[in-house]
Formats: sequence, structure tokens, C-alpha cells
Amino acid sequence: MKIKCSKANLLAGINIVLKAVPVKTTMNILECILIKAVNSQIKLVSNDMELGIETVVVGDIAEEGVIAINAKIFSDMVRKLPDSDVTIETDSSLNTKITCEKSKFSISAKDGSEFPELPVIEKSKRVTMSEFSLRSIIVQTVFSISDNENNKIMTGELFEIKGNKMRVVALDGHRIAVRNLELKEDFGNYKVIVPGKALNEISKILSGEADDEVNIYFADKNIMFELEDTIILSRLIEGEYYKIDQMLSSDFETKITVNKRELFNSIDRATLLIKESDKKPVVIETADQSLKLKMDTSIGSLDDEIMIEKEGKDIVIGFNPKFIIEALRVIDDENIDIYLVNSKSPCFIRDAQQNYIYLILPVNFVS
Amino acid sequence: MKIKCSKANLLAGINIVLKAVPVKTTMNILECILIKAVNSQIKLVSNDMELGIETVVVGDIAEEGVIAINAKIFSDMVRKLPDSDVTIETDSSLNTKITCEKSKFSISAKDGSEFPELPVIEKSKRVTMSEFSLRSIIVQTVFSISDNENNKIMTGELFEIKGNKMRVVALDGHRIAVRNLELKEDFGNYKVIVPGKALNEISKILSGEADDEVNIYFADKNIMFELEDTIILSRLIEGEYYKIDQMLSSDFETKITVNKRELFNSIDRATLLIKESDKKPVVIETADQSLKLKMDTSIGSLDDEIMIEKEGKDIVIGFNPKFIIEALRVIDDENIDIYLVNSKSPCFIRDAQQNYIYLILPVNFVS
Repeated sequence: MKIKCSKANLLAGINIVLKAVPVKTTMNILECILIKAVNSQIKLVSNDMELGIETVVVGDIAEEGVIAINAKIFSDMVRKLPDSDVTIETDSSLNTKITCEKSKFSISAKDGSEFPELPVIEKSKRVTMSEFSLRSIIVQTVFSISDNENNKIMTGELFEIKGNKMRVVALDGHRIAVRNLELKEDFGNYKVIVPGKALNEISKILSGEADDEVNIYFADKNIMFELEDTIILSRLIEGEYYKIDQMLSSDFETKITVNKRELFNSIDRATLLIKESDKKPVVIETADQSLKLKMDTSIGSLDDEIMIEKEGKDIVIGFNPKFIIEALRVIDDENIDIYLVNSKSPCFIRDAQQNYIYLILPVNFVS
Repeated sequence: MKIKCSKANLLAGINIVLKAVPVKTTMNILECILIKAVNSQIKLVSNDMELGIETVVVGDIAEEGVIAINAKIFSDMVRKLPDSDVTIETDSSLNTKITCEKSKFSISAKDGSEFPELPVIEKSKRVTMSEFSLRSIIVQTVFSISDNENNKIMTGELFEIKGNKMRVVALDGHRIAVRNLELKEDFGNYKVIVPGKALNEISKILSGEADDEVNIYFADKNIMFELEDTIILSRLIEGEYYKIDQMLSSDFETKITVNKRELFNSIDRATLLIKESDKKPVVIETADQSLKLKMDTSIGSLDDEIMIEKEGKDIVIGFNPKFIIEALRVIDDENIDIYLVNSKSPCFIRDAQQNYIYLILPVNFVS
């Protein structure tokens, strides 16, 4: 194999496929990036057997070939080369020279045929949206998945498409995060559970531009995200997702409207009094135009107060401050509405159109 | 005690004294910041028994007093308060309220009299220089101290003043870093060894402004740095420093002039082939107008070449790349001169005026 491409293009491609290189694995070959120079196209591929990424790098092929090369070392080498054209050349014994101006690295590569190829996905069941929208709905929900591998379904997110409506749901038993999105056209009905870890990596690759489109293809065991020069493949989680509609339908007794930043700062202040070991709630108490927040731990205590608008009866209720903080962090609105029933029922943070719904269970605050 | 000051002033003071709060200690009181509100002045003090810092915070004293408060919690609390005036009030049981707008933290403080006071230094033996100069000579040498506590003297830096000349030296048995500085006037003769760890912290407090002056006072067991609102005290290391003058005087057989950035990048490239465990040298070989660099490890190999100007005979010599990299990082010159004798003798990187001298011992490169 002999190829030539600019350092900038090569490094951009490496940074994308690095997202699916496993940190620890018993299969050494997975620690490699596959370089495929065939059919007049240079492609980089990575695969951790859950998530697979393939991206095209613009360059010239002098001699076709397929090799695998340790991802960490390869990326370090390219990163430290001068900003110029890079030549990668492998001989029949897989000795590989990476040359740029007067710098020449030599390293031993692996046979590319050992590398597990990505599954081929039939491109029939498709949904198209902007990279911006996809990235937003992932980032705005994925923090609510569970990291407990014993309950596999909770480690994933529900992707549900009904005609031109899409809903993404993440939950962990203490909270539910929901984002609703209107699609440009009717794409059909799909319902799959995508691993949260994969979505986290995918959100880092998505450009976040409203003008860039991404095609999502659904297969039996996989989902594929097709970007301009990159395809990302994730295995799906098998099983039936939780029925959440009943949990989300609710009346309320109290509605609070509050400045998001002020509430965030106040609860953020409270969190510094929490040690890892003791899980103390932040207790909030409404009055007609103000909200009192109280936190009391072995370190010390905080009394805080912020201005609110209130409808309905007064309430005292306790929450894990982390759950509130994480929801507030992904809401763009300046002012938010919080809906409450009583001190034992979940609170809802949601907008009028229900584009977002964050349900958070209260915790007992009587010590 | 009851005091009031702006959050910005208080936080600036806390950030300064935090540098002398020990991370781990058996004396709990040292994990505190001492707040002294006496004689119409608010002072914050920290002391890890090697390094002590005292800084003045502008504010109002409603009631004088001295308390000690856990440094980490106190700094976290103040950092997260709104940007407004902060009131700190302690009752007779040392219950302390930290109030800012409608936020009120409560925390238990400690009796300030338990806190070890900083020693009082007689201000007779003085040297004055700009904060910029002091910070520069520390940063440009302190990386060459040894972190081996078995040889205490190598963990410190020599501060040597002779009339209007100052010399700072750090060495670790494999290399020597020297910076020479001309002072504005004749301050007398002093020679002390200052702990490198303390100097590292001091360099972070110094403003780096050429217009700000720092007074340095010498005492038997201590050195004191007096800034505008802050004094920093360090214990000295006892003993006789190494005689380095003979090591520094040398003829040379080869002189190389090279672009610093190009040499840095090339050696930086070589370092990525080094694993923690195997200490491989970078081998450099001169030709008339070029320098070849070679690194060969179990990971792979690098061949590199940069343009140089050369006087004298050709040479092949090996170095620990880390030592070259660290010296190049603190040299401001665009082009540097390297002086060599043979493959077993130290190399010198120094400027014509010998404002800086970096001596680096070679390593055996025949495997």
C-alpha cells in the first residue's frame, strides 16, 4: 500500500474514527485503525464491536492495500508531523513508513484482513434530519441513562419515530428525559433502543450545523448514521422499552416560573456541601413570590432564596440536586416552568409545547 | 468576628493563600485558611510549615477576630457566591455565617489561635527586583531540580547574589540550569538554597509584570518575598551547594546554531516512541549543514533531519530527549547555540552573554 494525503485531512479522519477505538480490549486488532486504500478511495475504519466508524480521507493512492495500525501510536505520530503532505507506505512484510518532509517514522503494521469488517446495512428504512437536531436531542437526554449494566435497557435511549414526529427518551429509575422533534416529512414508524455510550460518541462527531444532514438507517440489529464523509454504526439493545406515557400524563397543583440561571446557581451552591458518601437532598419551599432552598449536611448548611412566579398552592419538596442541575444544564430557555403535585410525586420541568419534558422523582427530606 | 469584602477581592486573596495549603497533612489546622481581622486590616494566612503566605484583603471590619476555616470548603463556597459583597460573621461558638445577597452558608470554624503563626523576619538583608525577572528566572530553571528527597540539596535552587549580580542554579545530577541576572544596584552578597517546590508555588503568585517590584529578605533559616499586598515565606535548605563553576568552564570542538522551534518539534516527535519503562536516547549526528536525529525503540523508529549552521568537527552523540525538550521550552531565543566536545562530554546550550546556560550530560547510545 502507498498513499499520500495532507496532514490536516488525515488527522481529521483519525480524530473521527478514534471515537470507536476501545480503551481496553482482549482483541488486540481492535486497538488499531484500519486503513483501506481500495477502489480509488482512502478510508479509515474503527470498530469496538458495539460501535463502528468509517470515514473517507481525501488523498492519492499510488498502490492499493489494506493495513491495520495501532490507533494511539498512529494518531500521536500524525499529530506531531509537520503541516504538510504525509506519505504512508507499507512493504510486503507490513513494515510501514510514515513520511512527511524530512521526518520519517517506521512502525510495524498488522494484516488488514484480521480486522472485523463493519456489517453491511440495507439502506431502505431511513429518517433524515439535520446534524444540529440530532446532536441536540442526544446531548439533551443522554445524561439521564443508567450506567448500571445489569439493566441493559436503561443504558440505552429510545428512538421512536411516528410519521413526521420523533421522540427520544432516556431514564434511569429516578428520572426521565424526553425530547420531541418534528421531522420535515413522514418517514414511517420505527422504535429502537440505541446504546447511550454510542450516542455519546456520535454526538461528538456530529458537526452541529443546521445545514448538514444526517441519514439514519434502521436494521434489525443495527442503526446507521450516514454523514457526508462518515458512517457510524451502532448495535441496538434488544428488548421492549418502558411504557412511559402514563408516567408523563399528570395534573399539577403548583406551577412555578423561575429564572433558569438563578435556580442553577443556587442549587450548584448547595451541591458543594455534599460528600460522595452522604446523599442529602436540597429542600425547596415555595412562598408567593419566592423559593427558599435549604441544604444541610455534615460539612455545613446553605439557606438560599430566589424570586419566582407561582400559581397554585405552596409546597415543600426535596430533590437530589444533581438531577435538577443536569436537566437545567441542557435547557436553553431563560425562564422555565416547574410543575408539582405534592412532596411524594414527581416534578416536571417542561415547556408549553412539550418539546422537552424532564421528570424527576423527589426524595424524602425528613431526617 | 464580622467582616465584609467584595467577592472578587476575597476570592483573589483565597487563590493566593491556597498555594501554601497542604493537600495531605497530619495537622488538621493546616488545612485551614486563617482569617485575621485585627488592627483595621483583613489578612488571610496559610502555612504548610515549609511555605507560608499572608495576603491583605480590602474590606470593612465590623468586629475584630481571628478564625481558621477549612480552605477547600471556604474557597468552594466563595467561588460559588453571587458577584457581590460577602459578609463573614462568627459567633462565640465559632459558628460562621458567610452571607452574600440572599445566599447564606453556615459552617463551623476553628479557633484561630491554634494556627501556627508565620515566623517574623528581620528586614535588614534585602534584594529588590521586578516580579517579571524573579518569575522568569524561577520558571527557567526550576524544572532541573531533583525530586529525590534523599538528596535534599538537589531539591532546592541556589540563589546567589554578589553585588549587583544574581545567579540561580538548579541541578539533578544529569543536567544543570543556570540563569544570570543583573540587578539595578549593589545589594551585598548572599547565598541560600530555596526549596524548589516553594519556588514553583511562588512563581504562580508573582504577577510577571516588569513594573511590579518584589523585595527579597534573607534570614538564617528563611527567605521572605514581599509583594505589594502579599508576603511569602519559605524555609531554606541547610547545607553547602555544589561547586559548579568548574563544570561550567569548557572549551568546545563543535558549535551548532539551530532554529529552536525546529529542533523542539523534531525531538518532541522522537519522544512519542518512548515508553515509560525503556529509556532510549535520541541520537544526533552532525553534517556540514544538517543535523540528523534518530530514535529507535520497541514501538518503532524515527529518522529526522533539520538544517543547521556548524563550526568545528562532526559529532555523533545521544541524549535523554526530555532534558533537551525542557531546556528548549524555557529559552525565548529564535535560534540557539549548542556547544559540544565529544560523545562522552556534556553539551552546553547557552547564549553569547551567558544569561542562560543549560548543561546536559550525554547518554551512551551504543546498544
